[in-house]
Amino acid sequence: MSMDPAAALVVGVDFGTLSGRAVVVRVRDGAELGSAVTAYRHGVLDRELPTGGRALPPDWALQVPSDYREVLRTAVPAALAEAGADPSDVVGIGTDFTACTMLPTTADGTPLCELAEFADEPHAYVKLWRHHAAQPQADRVNELARLRSEPWLARYGGLISSEWEFAKGLQLLQEAPAVYAAMRHWVEAADWIVWQLTGRYVRNACSAGYKGILQDGDYPSAEFCRELDPGFEQFVAAKLRHPLGQLGERAGRLCARAAGWTGLPEGIAVAVGNVDAHVTAAAARAVRPGSMVAIMGTSTCHVVNGVEPRQVPGMCGVVDGGIVPGLWGYEAGQSGVGDIFGWFVEHGVPAAYHDTARERGISTHELLTELAAGQRVGQHGLLALDWHSGNRSVLVDHELSGVVVGQTLATRAEDTYRALLEATAFGTRTIIEAFRGAGVPVTELIVAGGLLTNRLLMQIYADVTNLPLSTIGSAQGPALGSAIHAAVAAGAYPDIRAAAAAMGSLGPTVYRPIPANASAYDQVYADYTALHDYFGRGANDVMHRLKARRRAATTNLVLEEAHV
Amino acid sequence: MSMDPAAALVVGVDFGTLSGRAVVVRVRDGAELGSAVTAYRHGVLDRELPTGGRALPPDWALQVPSDYREVLRTAVPAALAEAGADPSDVVGIGTDFTACTMLPTTADGTPLCELAEFADEPHAYVKLWRHHAAQPQADRVNELARLRSEPWLARYGGLISSEWEFAKGLQLLQEAPAVYAAMRHWVEAADWIVWQLTGRYVRNACSAGYKGILQDGDYPSAEFCRELDPGFEQFVAAKLRHPLGQLGERAGRLCARAAGWTGLPEGIAVAVGNVDAHVTAAAARAVRPGSMVAIMGTSTCHVVNGVEPRQVPGMCGVVDGGIVPGLWGYEAGQSGVGDIFGWFVEHGVPAAYHDTARERGISTHELLTELAAGQRVGQHGLLALDWHSGNRSVLVDHELSGVVVGQTLATRAEDTYRALLEATAFGTRTIIEAFRGAGVPVTELIVAGGLLTNRLLMQIYADVTNLPLSTIGSAQGPALGSAIHAAVAAGAYPDIRAAAAAMGSLGPTVYRPIPANASAYDQVYADYTALHDYFGRGANDVMHRLKARRRAATTNLVLEEAHV
Repeated sequence: MSMDPAAALVVGVDFGTLSGRAVVVRVRDGAELGSAVTAYRHGVLDRELPTGGRALPPDWALQVPSDYREVLRTAVPAALAEAGADPSDVVGIGTDFTACTMLPTTADGTPLCELAEFADEPHAYVKLWRHHAAQPQADRVNELARLRSEPWLARYGGLISSEWEFAKGLQLLQEAPAVYAAMRHWVEAADWIVWQLTGRYVRNACSAGYKGILQDGDYPSAEFCRELDPGFEQFVAAKLRHPLGQLGERAGRLCARAAGWTGLPEGIAVAVGNVDAHVTAAAARAVRPGSMVAIMGTSTCHVVNGVEPRQVPGMCGVVDGGIVPGLWGYEAGQSGVGDIFGWFVEHGVPAAYHDTARERGISTHELLTELAAGQRVGQHGLLALDWHSGNRSVLVDHELSGVVVGQTLATRAEDTYRALLEATAFGTRTIIEAFRGAGVPVTELIVAGGLLTNRLLMQIYADVTNLPLSTIGSAQGPALGSAIHAAVAAGAYPDIRAAAAAMGSLGPTVYRPIPANASAYDQVYADYTALHDYFGRGANDVMHRLKARRRAATTNLVLEEAHV
Repeated sequence: MSMDPAAALVVGVDFGTLSGRAVVVRVRDGAELGSAVTAYRHGVLDRELPTGGRALPPDWALQVPSDYREVLRTAVPAALAEAGADPSDVVGIGTDFTACTMLPTTADGTPLCELAEFADEPHAYVKLWRHHAAQPQADRVNELARLRSEPWLARYGGLISSEWEFAKGLQLLQEAPAVYAAMRHWVEAADWIVWQLTGRYVRNACSAGYKGILQDGDYPSAEFCRELDPGFEQFVAAKLRHPLGQLGERAGRLCARAAGWTGLPEGIAVAVGNVDAHVTAAAARAVRPGSMVAIMGTSTCHVVNGVEPRQVPGMCGVVDGGIVPGLWGYEAGQSGVGDIFGWFVEHGVPAAYHDTARERGISTHELLTELAAGQRVGQHGLLALDWHSGNRSVLVDHELSGVVVGQTLATRAEDTYRALLEATAFGTRTIIEAFRGAGVPVTELIVAGGLLTNRLLMQIYADVTNLPLSTIGSAQGPALGSAIHAAVAAGAYPDIRAAAAAMGSLGPTVYRPIPANASAYDQVYADYTALHDYFGRGANDVMHRLKARRRAATTNLVLEEAHV
């Protein structure tokens, strides 16, 4: 350990979908001294295993756990080097992970895919969060939970996702019983990486609550699991249940092997694992009740703390200590945000815009934003629904799709672009109103993620939600948040709140609602809500029918081509 | 007159929005021997008069009558020359015109704008069909007619258009009383051009019925007109009423002056004037009850004959002898068709499509059509409403706008293109079903106009309507139709039906509905109808609100800029 507390450092490591990022942070003020990124060698496996062999079915998404170790071996030393840091100044390491990302292991944490007998078995690999092949199992979980009026269902807005621990675990049992039998632990990758660092398995309270259906100290009952599948009866007891660690706690100390990988001192504190969105709240200093963090990228994840557990229809979940110990952490999300803007720019914008942007040395997004920024609220005459990737909150329906209403022969690309920006803001307002309606206050918005650089978008969000909006100060929010958790785990701060206050940061601009715009948007939002409910709540199930027809037409086509 | 009946010729002249087209046609078989086009010297006046002076207000659209004479002087001789025709073989001339296109004249037919005192007076010029500045007057006509339960209102689907004779005439009275006082006749351009050819004013039954509210021998009463405006009481008696000619009748004989302009023999038959869409029915041989002609260009006009007068909600009108004497002619329309496709290609298609089309030497429309043609019904997952230019039939609401439902990140330009093609087909089916629902059979579709060359579009229309679909054989349908009317007027055939049978023509292809597609489209059409009614019949007036907001935002902007 360093002799000079003012020089103390921590390392945060953010494990994303395609790469891992390490950042070296000064404990006393959160200064980011160096960082490095390692892309996963195998990326996302959605066609075949690295060993070749049979093709993966549609909707599968796997990863290789050794890729995560490689991040520890390469990104951490590289970040230390970039920081010019003396490794002996580092007092702790924290990590965050995509979720729900699951892998089956032996009793000592060895991933089953690393055993020779299972190297060719897809079910022995890591199931990435976006592995969507367990939908039949999720449907069964939801159906049975409704039938049995399981009390935990309301804590998840009424629906358990196919992405989560139970659906993926049940798929494993039903499709690969031998792997299921060989599995001792069904582990969140967030916890597996901490296990690798410490040699000790500690299950983090955040994932266990949001993804593992742990509520008020209990998982779904053995009786429930038996009704799902007789072979699943002992799932919780035999594969899932494990002592918990609270966020910000020390899961253990850095083991000799991991010290060797990272170049960090053996024995430093390793924080309990965490989820990328939730750890960002600390980096954005959003740890008070009512401060909602929106991590806005291709999709948006919303997290906010509350003082009590409430039933919020359509939320992803509410978990005791899910963001910081002592508060109830709520999560909600929008399945499509930046990816809708990206799709539109790629597939709906004529050449002249791209040419002009190129000539001016700006992106087409920037040009469209500039043109749209010159408009008044309502001037484009359009209203859109932001469901091009379905709707996560509050409708939890991925068969929904996008809508644009109001097109005329005078409609131009910047009009549609602005309408899409606004649609996602209305989507966020819908989530905020669902929280408020359930008694969970939301009093400010703090935005993290790549979209925060779009000033028009930020002002629209402030105007539409009529909330003051700040942006996170760091460009690597999750990694900084993990470093903050590491500082708490190392005892440098008494709790996450104190550490966030000292080490988190906000950008200089606060976007305040412009009253005239907020009032104009209130009217447009009423129209958004009417369309939202018409298309989303069963008055007209046309979107479901359109998807079903599309699926049928495409399937027929594939079958016919196969006959040719 | 020619000595050889087999060599007899007629001339048809089609007066369009921007130009006039003359065609020389052989009477015995309808062969088109030559044609020529003359663009109007002054085009459409929508900013200022040719004399300069004050700017025209928004929504004005005027023309200059001497431009029409110029077509007679240039296009007719040029067409004769191209045909290599002996003018002495020509036995008649027929004309058709845009409608409702109106001009105020003196007792001898001199347009008031040709009098020195009125040369600077916009109201003294021709008000083109698309002059839309008389909407307040049309609103008043409709309001009063509903209030008084005027029996004629149902003959127009319940609404009188701002484009028609009464609204435009009332605007003339209210905004330029001196011009109104100096006007002896309020004349359809279709009849004025015949007056120029013959020296004799004959009012055609088609315009008088569809645009002049002449029903069962009566115009709206003097009492009705007085209630509109006290100064309007004698409008019908003093300005409008005039002896009628039936379609295909001889209005008179070619006068010496017009013989001099055209190079045609003095004394040949001149047919009663007609409307461009209606005259096309003869060219397409669609003169039997149940044969609906759709003239498909930027917009679509539908005309069909029936044996009885029926009240069809949202039709443009039904007129006794409005297409051929002895039958009731029905008219309906879609305000936007080809212009929607054109708008999409210009403003919604990425560069790569245009580049590929250019490399292959085809239009982007052709490329998108080719890509869309490879799809199954329902495969794109989209559903659109074709209201980008508002809705003429059956909703008669120009505050409506376009919609696309079902967009996903996988949606590509050809998907939206096909959805827009289909939307216009659903719009036509909606019209057909309104006719059928009111007891007017529609048993086949015959398409004229520029869009008939798109074979995918034709097949979609056949599949969606589940009707056999033929296309007109001539590329200059209205002018050929006028020539057919000239042949009847000249006595070469006993009536329009006989002449149409001999001189009209259809293309070789008959598009027959593909049963599987027709059945699949029945399901999609049910969804179209649900959206049509939801957005168009008052369940959700969001489109009206979007237009109102757009107008308010734009007006504010203009006002503010004026202050700068």
